[in-house]
Amino acid sequence: MLKVGLLGAGRIGRVHAQAISAHSNSKLCAVSDAVPEAAESLANEYGAQARGSDEIIADPQIDAVLIATPTDTHSDLIETATAAGKAVLCEKPVDLSLDRAVQCLKTVSGRGKPVMIGFNRRFDPHFSALKDSLEAGEVGTAELLSITSFDPAPPPVSYVKVSGGLFRDMMIHDFDMANFLMGDVPQTISAVGSSLVDAGIGAAGDVDTAVVTMTYADGRIAVIKNSRRAAYGYDQRVELLGSKGLLQVQNALENTVVKSTAEGVVGAKPTYFFLERYMPAYRVEWAAFVEAVANGSDVPVSLKDGVAALAMAEAATLSMHSGKPVRMEEVLKPVAK
Amino acid sequence: MLKVGLLGAGRIGRVHAQAISAHSNSKLCAVSDAVPEAAESLANEYGAQARGSDEIIADPQIDAVLIATPTDTHSDLIETATAAGKAVLCEKPVDLSLDRAVQCLKTVSGRGKPVMIGFNRRFDPHFSALKDSLEAGEVGTAELLSITSFDPAPPPVSYVKVSGGLFRDMMIHDFDMANFLMGDVPQTISAVGSSLVDAGIGAAGDVDTAVVTMTYADGRIAVIKNSRRAAYGYDQRVELLGSKGLLQVQNALENTVVKSTAEGVVGAKPTYFFLERYMPAYRVEWAAFVEAVANGSDVPVSLKDGVAALAMAEAATLSMHSGKPVRMEEVLKPVAK
Amino acid sequence: MLKVGLLGAGRIGRVHAQAISAHSNSKLCAVSDAVPEAAESLANEYGAQARGSDEIIADPQIDAVLIATPTDTHSDLIETATAAGKAVLCEKPVDLSLDRAVQCLKTVSGRGKPVMIGFNRRFDPHFSALKDSLEAGEVGTAELLSITSFDPAPPPVSYVKVSGGLFRDMMIHDFDMANFLMGDVPQTISAVGSSLVDAGIGAAGDVDTAVVTMTYADGRIAVIKNSRRAAYGYDQRVELLGSKGLLQVQNALENTVVKSTAEGVVGAKPTYFFLERYMPAYRVEWAAFVEAVANGSDVPVSLKDGVAALAMAEAATLSMHSGKPVRMEEVLKPVAK
Amino acid sequence: MLKVGLLGAGRIGRVHAQAISAHSNSKLCAVSDAVPEAAESLANEYGAQARGSDEIIADPQIDAVLIATPTDTHSDLIETATAAGKAVLCEKPVDLSLDRAVQCLKTVSGRGKPVMIGFNRRFDPHFSALKDSLEAGEVGTAELLSITSFDPAPPPVSYVKVSGGLFRDMMIHDFDMANFLMGDVPQTISAVGSSLVDAGIGAAGDVDTAVVTMTYADGRIAVIKNSRRAAYGYDQRVELLGSKGLLQVQNALENTVVKSTAEGVVGAKPTYFFLERYMPAYRVEWAAFVEAVANGSDVPVSLKDGVAALAMAEAATLSMHSGKPVRMEEVLKPVAK
Repeated sequence: MLKVGLLGAGRIGRVHAQAISAHSNSKLCAVSDAVPEAAESLANEYGAQARGSDEIIADPQIDAVLIATPTDTHSDLIETATAAGKAVLCEKPVDLSLDRAVQCLKTVSGRGKPVMIGFNRRFDPHFSALKDSLEAGEVGTAELLSITSFDPAPPPVSYVKVSGGLFRDMMIHDFDMANFLMGDVPQTISAVGSSLVDAGIGAAGDVDTAVVTMTYADGRIAVIKNSRRAAYGYDQRVELLGSKGLLQVQNALENTVVKSTAEGVVGAKPTYFFLERYMPAYRVEWAAFVEAVANGSDVPVSLKDGVAALAMAEAATLSMHSGKPVRMEEVLKPVAK
Repeated sequence: MLKVGLLGAGRIGRVHAQAISAHSNSKLCAVSDAVPEAAESLANEYGAQARGSDEIIADPQIDAVLIATPTDTHSDLIETATAAGKAVLCEKPVDLSLDRAVQCLKTVSGRGKPVMIGFNRRFDPHFSALKDSLEAGEVGTAELLSITSFDPAPPPVSYVKVSGGLFRDMMIHDFDMANFLMGDVPQTISAVGSSLVDAGIGAAGDVDTAVVTMTYADGRIAVIKNSRRAAYGYDQRVELLGSKGLLQVQNALENTVVKSTAEGVVGAKPTYFFLERYMPAYRVEWAAFVEAVANGSDVPVSLKDGVAALAMAEAATLSMHSGKPVRMEEVLKPVAK
Repeated sequence: MLKVGLLGAGRIGRVHAQAISAHSNSKLCAVSDAVPEAAESLANEYGAQARGSDEIIADPQIDAVLIATPTDTHSDLIETATAAGKAVLCEKPVDLSLDRAVQCLKTVSGRGKPVMIGFNRRFDPHFSALKDSLEAGEVGTAELLSITSFDPAPPPVSYVKVSGGLFRDMMIHDFDMANFLMGDVPQTISAVGSSLVDAGIGAAGDVDTAVVTMTYADGRIAVIKNSRRAAYGYDQRVELLGSKGLLQVQNALENTVVKSTAEGVVGAKPTYFFLERYMPAYRVEWAAFVEAVANGSDVPVSLKDGVAALAMAEAATLSMHSGKPVRMEEVLKPVAK
Repeated sequence: MLKVGLLGAGRIGRVHAQAISAHSNSKLCAVSDAVPEAAESLANEYGAQARGSDEIIADPQIDAVLIATPTDTHSDLIETATAAGKAVLCEKPVDLSLDRAVQCLKTVSGRGKPVMIGFNRRFDPHFSALKDSLEAGEVGTAELLSITSFDPAPPPVSYVKVSGGLFRDMMIHDFDMANFLMGDVPQTISAVGSSLVDAGIGAAGDVDTAVVTMTYADGRIAVIKNSRRAAYGYDQRVELLGSKGLLQVQNALENTVVKSTAEGVVGAKPTYFFLERYMPAYRVEWAAFVEAVANGSDVPVSLKDGVAALAMAEAATLSMHSGKPVRMEEVLKPVAK
């Protein structure tokens, strides 16, 4: 039974609390949060204790921590927790600063403690079925990947301001999905972006609509489309053209009811947002973490994967501002140092 | 070049005129109609002559006649035309009277002239693709057939009164489709029907909503659903459960546009009615007739097929009124005489 | 917190154990089974006690029992449990004998204890969304209902022999679905059936493929198709034609991956069988029971509903054997006594 | 009745011959081709005369010419034909040389004769339905356009060598589609491309897989994906995210048959290639030309539209080779001269 401390009792923390509790081999023991009431409320719900982060990390009874705190605390907590011998599952992104993330990677890499980054979409049954089909050679070799990822509605501008920008906050999931499916990081990244959805996002120096094109050393190409608004709900699709066919993940719908009237043939909308769409993925993610910790095997999404996705976000940001493609090696040099 | 006389210049006559003219080996030479102006107008459109039916049938220059006149004239015209040595393509149903149709079949059967009945749906590319897949054994052996056939809107009650009723006028297409796909006529027929769409149809002694269940000598089962109204358009679907899978023909849609908004995911409606849905089928039907005549081979839908479908309509009518299943042999005895 | 005793630790009992435990306001306290090891194993899994049925029913600490034992014990257990003051959720069918079920209904009806029958499909989110749409008038008034329900593979003949036959064992779900959606029981029932899937089923006196047509007092019609085998998985579809449109529940698929190759465009199969397809429905069903018990409100599926579905199965069996439609009043007369 | 001379009797010439003949207000009078036998064969088929191009253009009896000759003759023929007072419908692209195309535009612009460029996809019923929906405001204002356009199989390398490259030969259709849907030409174009399908295409200096991203003055974004190979057939899809929803054109399929077996749920493939997919569009295109000529109204796709698409192909080619985005004004300066 893995004894788990949860750092962060916000929206995503609650999601993880549910997954931790539902798993037969893990137990939520402690919860911390900058807002003590939030920690207490969540702890009570699951029969856990509300405690301070430091205390949780220092407690030798705790085997693992799940970091679901604000992004700027991730690197510090990863370092402290691994130093205290904990296994770590940390929410994405690793950090807003690529330098800091790289430093963190160097710091913890010798410690031998599992550090997994929470790219939950890798564990979504639809995306993993696509990956399985690809690896089974069912469409030959990959050539052209296309990821569509639209949120149903933009976050408040206040959130956008501290988010690190669309590439680090939102598209980072798609960068990791590209790495997951293509089995490699790209060579060049080229980004364009606009503020079309909410002028306040533009005023805050960010974009809400963006397209990123990536090329790989072997000539393959990937393109990612993001928008902060899709009036019809959360749009999460992937398609991959291979030498022998096409694989697509279509949207999961709220239900399978189809209504045909004089107005047309109407199906249900996509499941609304990430909580609805990816709850099963969060559970599979947690099970994969528990299993890796139990078996001493490699975690399926490493800290290095987290740094790679962050470096891609960095490159995309640079490309959008410079209006020129950016070679990944330009942003990854620090990693090599 | 097959020289063709068209008897009947109404809606369905115009459809056939188009198919005859578009075919490279047939020529529309003459058109007749009870309303001389209708015949003239259609004849002019295609560079043909407006003449009387008798005159057309008697003309040795005419190779074939297409009978698209009111149903109660079909048997007479089939008999006269074959006596005059013409090849015949006659619209469904053969007759409203099963006795008369059987008599007609006996009369013309020794003449050796091709008589084809216009069950156009056999030539629809979707249904024929299903048939091909079935015959290729792709779903094993057939077990359970289901036909859904809804018109977009009911005809005028004045039409219903002379139509012979839903089973002879509308479901007759589905009876033939069942024969086409199952490769046999059923052993028993059981029908229920109601007037739910238009009270006037009920007042006229007919139904507008009906379900017919049929069993076959080898235990297979088929069910046909008809409604005179589908608010979303012409609904023409077939599904067949076989020992190794299911085959379905879905509706052909007006276009492939999908619109996703806050209201849902909206696709186009089915193509509106039989003219839109089955125009390609009418062309393939005509081509099959021309080819059979040219090669002296059997027509793909015989007069006997037409009689069989009519006998099924008769059985369904009897069953609905008696509230009991009817064995096909009860209605087919006259044929055996 | 509702304290629950589970009678029956077989496959369906395990499903309910999971639902009971997952609910925040109910607790699985005791489990019984004819095979004591089965009860013990399941009890251990959920921290409950393995006990005898009588003991569980007699225990004043237990608030409710869930009956998941063989069908021929249902009526007895419902009577004993309600006599002991328990709330009851009993698996379908109520009984194999309509007489016994009617007697049971009479026996318990004065006791004022909630008795709910486990027609789980009413709680499936897809079917209930269709029902909501229908009740909101989105397709006008119902006219023609069609239910397709195919199992992936036939059960062993040994099971078939004690099952009460396809109509009582399998189609009973569809009878209840018809009652749920049409809001009424039918007036006449007409059934045909064959043994096409497994000759052993036929030899055992049962059918594996069947079509039932039902008519309602107001002229509406419903048709149910059942097969014990669908090579592609569990096929669970409903469609309802209304005066203003059509509502369909399509199959829930294993995932949303679509693979396009030279062989065609391939989507995932339906979720395999009832455990996969209806697990969410079992949870919603349980929640509805807990809520009704807590609020003292009517259970959403009453014992009377269970008797009605059983009466329809009886009528269908009679109709298939006699080859004639059966009026529901013929089989329901005993209920009125 | 528009009397038409067809210049070019190759594959696309034959498509146009069919459309010209099928139209009730146009007549195919003459056909020319560099290979006289080809001209004669096609002319015979439609009761037209085989003649030389110069002769056709000089004939005062001919009202219009359809140019379906090799691309390097287009500009010359447009100039000569308009000088001779003909209305012109010219296949895409206008020219392989942007300079020459611009010169041609200048030459003919004062002549007042209609010159239409054959971007047939604008007339496809699916794409035009999407455009109608967009213009009706059904998804709000356009924000992000995505065009997927994959050929079923690569052309011979010999063809690739003289084609002008993927951007001028293949993606030019998509550039025009973007202009059609976005109602504007882009401000910047950024292209990446690889040879993944056929090494011979790479050896010939071309690419077979490419992604182009375009930005517009108002911040909108468009992305085009091309591949010379899709094992499942001709993939022609468009999707457009607007402020209030998403519009998609899905592939037109060979038929509506769906086969469900143990292997999955298999639908038909897309219609094979452009002849099958776009034959209706060629007819609508021709009708639009005939109508514009008859009414003296503007042609729906002007020579200027043809030059714009060619300029975009030029910009994409430059961008791919330089690895940098290209501003459209850089390539369009010559037009402004």
